[in-house]
Amino acid sequence: MRKIKKPELPVLAIDLGGTKLLSAIISPAGEVLAREYCFVFADEGPQSVIERIFSSINSILWQISIEPSQLNSISIAAAGAIDTEKGLVTSSPHLPGWHNIPLRDMVKEKYSVNTYLINDASAAVLGEHHFGAGQGINNLILLTIGTGIGGGIIIDGKLYSGTNGTAGEIGHMTISTNGPKCTCGNVGCLEMLVSGKAIARETIKRIRQGEKSSLVNVNDITAEEVLKAAQDGDFLASKVIFKAATCLGIGMVNIVNIFNPEMIIIGGGAANMGNLLINPAKQIVREKAFQLPANTVQIVPAQLGNDAGVFGAAIFAFQQNLKRGE
Amino acid sequence: MRKIKKPELPVLAIDLGGTKLLSAIISPAGEVLAREYCFVFADEGPQSVIERIFSSINSILWQISIEPSQLNSISIAAAGAIDTEKGLVTSSPHLPGWHNIPLRDMVKEKYSVNTYLINDASAAVLGEHHFGAGQGINNLILLTIGTGIGGGIIIDGKLYSGTNGTAGEIGHMTISTNGPKCTCGNVGCLEMLVSGKAIARETIKRIRQGEKSSLVNVNDITAEEVLKAAQDGDFLASKVIFKAATCLGIGMVNIVNIFNPEMIIIGGGAANMGNLLINPAKQIVREKAFQLPANTVQIVPAQLGNDAGVFGAAIFAFQQNLKRGE
Repeated sequence: MRKIKKPELPVLAIDLGGTKLLSAIISPAGEVLAREYCFVFADEGPQSVIERIFSSINSILWQISIEPSQLNSISIAAAGAIDTEKGLVTSSPHLPGWHNIPLRDMVKEKYSVNTYLINDASAAVLGEHHFGAGQGINNLILLTIGTGIGGGIIIDGKLYSGTNGTAGEIGHMTISTNGPKCTCGNVGCLEMLVSGKAIARETIKRIRQGEKSSLVNVNDITAEEVLKAAQDGDFLASKVIFKAATCLGIGMVNIVNIFNPEMIIIGGGAANMGNLLINPAKQIVREKAFQLPANTVQIVPAQLGNDAGVFGAAIFAFQQNLKRGE
Repeated sequence: MRKIKKPELPVLAIDLGGTKLLSAIISPAGEVLAREYCFVFADEGPQSVIERIFSSINSILWQISIEPSQLNSISIAAAGAIDTEKGLVTSSPHLPGWHNIPLRDMVKEKYSVNTYLINDASAAVLGEHHFGAGQGINNLILLTIGTGIGGGIIIDGKLYSGTNGTAGEIGHMTISTNGPKCTCGNVGCLEMLVSGKAIARETIKRIRQGEKSSLVNVNDITAEEVLKAAQDGDFLASKVIFKAATCLGIGMVNIVNIFNPEMIIIGGGAANMGNLLINPAKQIVREKAFQLPANTVQIVPAQLGNDAGVFGAAIFAFQQNLKRGE
């Protein structure tokens, strides 16, 4: 029997978001051999979340009866400002208490397996570029609009992650100097005006201020419910979604003027909010951005859904193998 | 006598701004063989400006007694959204009436010399990267703050100019959704809040609204005069400069969060406004941007002054020669 080489072994890829944790074992051919979801309970703090990551790794390895030594590597995509080189989660608006946590080395030491750490939106853009909406596109930007807003950048066909690996924090671009304070410490960030959390918060605020709406359970309103109400013609919900769409449009104008990309891919929950959220935002890009890049850019929904992050984390690991000549 | 090859001949480089036009003849070694300034008088419209470009080319060739055929090429850096591939000035906030003007081919036909056209800030960042503040830096952003605000991007040591050559319009990034309308058609652009024009306009507006200032010649106030008054302790001038510095800081926070660059170079007239404009802006970057990229980025003044554009235009031409294998 010939010896199995590292690149032929699968990667255990993890996508650690602010709400959910997805683990998957992915072969070099892009086949998903196992997958597992759990909740993060980020409010319980880093130690507790890290225990949950270990449980998920143990459980998915058990699921297909393999040992850590039978993995090419473990690759973690995490929400926040990631120092890829040092393997640190330096800070994260969606993981309270995470400051310079050496997540890569903690996992590596526990399982004695090569481990990588990248930003979740960087992973997602790698995933969409290799297997999703961005195949064959040289310059593209991914916006994942979920609880927060993440951004990933492909330039000249390669992931651009900046000097420390933190590039792409497009959700934390100020578009309104008088806007609300963001958990990142900045003000008027795109994320504070467009994300799922922002849509829910704005609706709740307006109802509490006395505006009328068909939404009644004020303490528990979700972005999905606001969207549904807007689709049903609720005036307040429509106004909130339209305001978010306007801000998304302005954010995309900035992207178009700065990057002149071939494509902007919109992922996360918002990818499915086409008519009410994405279409008015596209209209603003056509009206407000420079004409030539506005006419060039394709604005399209993501194709891989929740799998983009784990696919991208796996691609990142295989690419790092190639660089290391393994 | 051996035949002189194209790459050994000099480039006639032109920097066409909204106010001034600089022409220079630059050798492959970076030596300036001749130089000439004139005013653009952009308000007279494209035809008149193009005649002035021709005059400047004729005059500088005459200055050192050479024919167009003794040039490697002519390379024009122009303010605005430039379609480098097609050689068009598609639009320009500082050149009124310029819409899809085929400037490259007009010059090429007149002189029968290979001609290139790029954005002026893209040229300036190439200049600073090769001969100025950005030597040896892989990921850097140039902001030229003059009449308007231009931006140039170097990624992985190369100019990034996007899909059509229009990338880098950082001056036309909205940072204030309620901000003033910009000549580009957008609102609250960085340029409307930080440029020389913006500083002068804001001061004039406030004086007309009855605020007291030592600046008296209300119709004719320049940004330089506002800066001087602020340095002398004028309260209104200080307030206007501080507001511009705050907005510049927010713009740079966006750049730092999106690009995680090694360096931001500040050029144009603002490069010399260190204490009052640049220092408070740097402070905002340290306070509001993600910590890791904020600690990484160096924010430094440009070194080539007004020559960055012509140097960059020449470098661009020599690089294109290499690509074409000449």
